[in-house]
Amino acid sequence: MLHAMREEEENGRVTLAQVAEEAGVSVSTVSKVLNGRQDVSRPTRLKVERLLEVHGYQRTPKSAWEAPLVEIVFPELDNLWAMELIKGAENVAKEHGASVVLTESGTRHAPDPSWIEGVLRRRPLGVVLVFSSLPLEVKQQLRSRAIPFVIIDPAGDPEPDVPSVGSANWAGGLAATRHLVECGHRRIAIITGPEDMLCSLARLDGFRSAMGMAGLEIPPGYVSFGDFHVEGGRRRAMELLALPERPTAIFAGSDLQALGVLEAARVHGLKVPDDLSVVGYDDVPIAQWTSPALTTVHQPLRQMAEEAAQMLIRMRAEGGSAARLELATSLVVRKSTAPPPAA
Amino acid sequence: MLHAMREEEENGRVTLAQVAEEAGVSVSTVSKVLNGRQDVSRPTRLKVERLLEVHGYQRTPKSAWEAPLVEIVFPELDNLWAMELIKGAENVAKEHGASVVLTESGTRHAPDPSWIEGVLRRRPLGVVLVFSSLPLEVKQQLRSRAIPFVIIDPAGDPEPDVPSVGSANWAGGLAATRHLVECGHRRIAIITGPEDMLCSLARLDGFRSAMGMAGLEIPPGYVSFGDFHVEGGRRRAMELLALPERPTAIFAGSDLQALGVLEAARVHGLKVPDDLSVVGYDDVPIAQWTSPALTTVHQPLRQMAEEAAQMLIRMRAEGGSAARLELATSLVVRKSTAPPPAA
Repeated sequence: MLHAMREEEENGRVTLAQVAEEAGVSVSTVSKVLNGRQDVSRPTRLKVERLLEVHGYQRTPKSAWEAPLVEIVFPELDNLWAMELIKGAENVAKEHGASVVLTESGTRHAPDPSWIEGVLRRRPLGVVLVFSSLPLEVKQQLRSRAIPFVIIDPAGDPEPDVPSVGSANWAGGLAATRHLVECGHRRIAIITGPEDMLCSLARLDGFRSAMGMAGLEIPPGYVSFGDFHVEGGRRRAMELLALPERPTAIFAGSDLQALGVLEAARVHGLKVPDDLSVVGYDDVPIAQWTSPALTTVHQPLRQMAEEAAQMLIRMRAEGGSAARLELATSLVVRKSTAPPPAA
Repeated sequence: MLHAMREEEENGRVTLAQVAEEAGVSVSTVSKVLNGRQDVSRPTRLKVERLLEVHGYQRTPKSAWEAPLVEIVFPELDNLWAMELIKGAENVAKEHGASVVLTESGTRHAPDPSWIEGVLRRRPLGVVLVFSSLPLEVKQQLRSRAIPFVIIDPAGDPEPDVPSVGSANWAGGLAATRHLVECGHRRIAIITGPEDMLCSLARLDGFRSAMGMAGLEIPPGYVSFGDFHVEGGRRRAMELLALPERPTAIFAGSDLQALGVLEAARVHGLKVPDDLSVVGYDDVPIAQWTSPALTTVHQPLRQMAEEAAQMLIRMRAEGGSAARLELATSLVVRKSTAPPPAA
């Protein structure tokens, strides 16, 4: 007990014994809550969690793991770019003798509550979350267990108090549009992503800026919002190509939407790039295999996951607070863009 | 000791104490070896491993896991169909409150030796291996730890003593070719996979049988071997389309090779399907998004992984021996096939 008190004096930390006393439960019950065990009643668990939070309890990290794990959690694995993120996390984990645990959970906004219980039992080195936000409760639970976490946030809408890795969406939209302008296009349309995602808006603003800087107008109907998937891209492109003055180039906002644009062009009997230029976004692996190969904005997904995993390892070793890392995007010119057809 | 002896008499099992005595080491050293710990000298480890193997030692499975894991190991994560397999494993793991650990290791033939050490430390519920074979030593190490394992083997070359899940490659090749014959094609070429993979040969044999049954000849040069990747498909298709009597249809052996064929057709100025019909194999997600959407043989990858994970759970609960499960393939007709152009 003397030891525990001194420890607290020394580093300002509350001990398990103090939390147990205040909660009126045994130390072993507090320990069970910390380890995510299920044999504690819900009211007790909530009481203990609240006390851990109030006192800012921080478990001392274990110095060595028997079987070190890095967790990566996705809202959905369907996404083509999930594999690139997994590969990035796997590269860094392997370097550190750790394995990657993969979970598909929740919605775009946050993982399921059940996920957190598993994490507390597994006690990974750290957690990479591919979500734009995280419930306060989850943040506190991870913090009190000294499990570092980083958000990978291609949506570009990170919370200020959470370490996150993103990429430069506005600059990407600008680069894609400038390329089309430099090819000689004047009638350029955009299909960006969903209206409620900051990355969609940032890419659209980059598009608007490039058009403005080139002195080009954006005709009515030339800006549309997709869903980042093939079908949404196809539907929006069918509308754009049916306009009385149809665009000679479409910036598709994502590679999947660009695939939909290619299909719409085929249905309209338009050759890409002779009749219509198309630029994608993301540079997922299939972008190089479409016919024709897709000019697109490279989002360094693998590198983003590598940076996120590295941040975890550093936070684990040195502690550390919220940081935001934004990696550069770059234009990859392939074969889906060319000068517009002669008028 | 009496208890240990009685236990052995009862179920014919050797105990840790007996292995330790025979090896001239402590029980705790044997236990360290079993748990994949690194603080045991290599000679001691080898000696203990050999004795565990000689006596057919089987650890009693734990009845409950603190943080249950299902492992899935790939030679490479680049493959488009890796994601389908991961999703299958994840579906079943989630049902059983387990998480998926993902490892990229080794070559097409076997995982790296370092991988096994990690598995022994993690003690997963079971392991799904996407490899056609497994070194004897690895099999023994997994068996002595009572860690069930199943091979997912799209290559169609399973070892007889290992539970595995595959799919019907010969029937798939037959169905793809029959479809082209029924469209009216007579000049049909095949690009199958590498010559040293049984699945390539099975698909080719299915092709030959369908051609034979239709009374069609296979002209010289109409059979070629690719690498299951886009570039190999493109190169072989460029050769096929340069033949004096070029084929009106190509069975591409994999969807990635089919993407290469689509690109070769574009370069040759041939319209798919008006001038050239193309059939893929696998039905990876992008097959529905190519222009035109790809007619292909559906390989039930997600279901294969689900079956493999279910087998692990059953083996864990009931024990059980080697089983081979072969799931049916089916033709999915989309827009890349049509009758041949009028001669």
